[in-house]
Amino acid sequence: MPTPPALAAWHHIVASRDMRALADLLDADAVFHSPVVHTPQRGRALVLAYLTAAGQVFFNPTFRYAREVHGTHDAVLEFEVEIDGIQVNGVDMIRWNDAGRIVDFKVMVRPLKAIQLIHAKMAAMLQAAAPKGA
Amino acid sequence: MPTPPALAAWHHIVASRDMRALADLLDADAVFHSPVVHTPQRGRALVLAYLTAAGQVFFNPTFRYAREVHGTHDAVLEFEVEIDGIQVNGVDMIRWNDAGRIVDFKVMVRPLKAIQLIHAKMAAMLQAAAPKGA
Repeated sequence: MPTPPALAAWHHIVASRDMRALADLLDADAVFHSPVVHTPQRGRALVLAYLTAAGQVFFNPTFRYAREVHGTHDAVLEFEVEIDGIQVNGVDMIRWNDAGRIVDFKVMVRPLKAIQLIHAKMAAMLQAAAPKGA
Repeated sequence: MPTPPALAAWHHIVASRDMRALADLLDADAVFHSPVVHTPQRGRALVLAYLTAAGQVFFNPTFRYAREVHGTHDAVLEFEVEIDGIQVNGVDMIRWNDAGRIVDFKVMVRPLKAIQLIHAKMAAMLQAAAPKGA
């Protein structure tokens, strides 16, 4: 099955480590599901904020995709990365619509030690990105 | 893409909640990767013990597969289940060989509250299943 355009666009963003193209790739009603929290984050602006923070946490030189499975509107990309000496293994689960815009982005991480690390890192990153004085 | 036989066999085991057919489906050198612990569990006997314990923890009446993506030798099955009032969302990542035997089985779970619950439940289940006097 050839790589769907939305998935190719995501790979380009990851390879270039340039999250600026991401806004155009996200549907206005996109939803983000964090590995840490149950409640979904809804809307392009929030999804962009979460994925940008995630990029800063995950995209160090050891980050690599290890396995990929995709259908017509869904892909699961397994990744491996070492952060602060801890092996992090996870999946990006991406769903797009007929227009090729991402409508749903879910991340899961293992093992427990890694999810605890990501919890701490993401909280710090999102706090640093929050509007000052808010 | 039609459902590969190994994946169809796994779905049959899950639907029947009958783990006895699982031994035949596992390759002798199968590996299990837990959502909690980094170290892989190697060999059919250990994988069978882990998946049987996992079946007892996960397969209550609320368990359902919500999404599935597969290639020729890999599948990712997303599941949802409520355990002790906690929403558990996860993936079964299954890889099989040309003979249709499962060689690799990895589980990831979100959110953090759910992985903490699974940690406690699996430890209790594996301890109960350990040989007496060992």
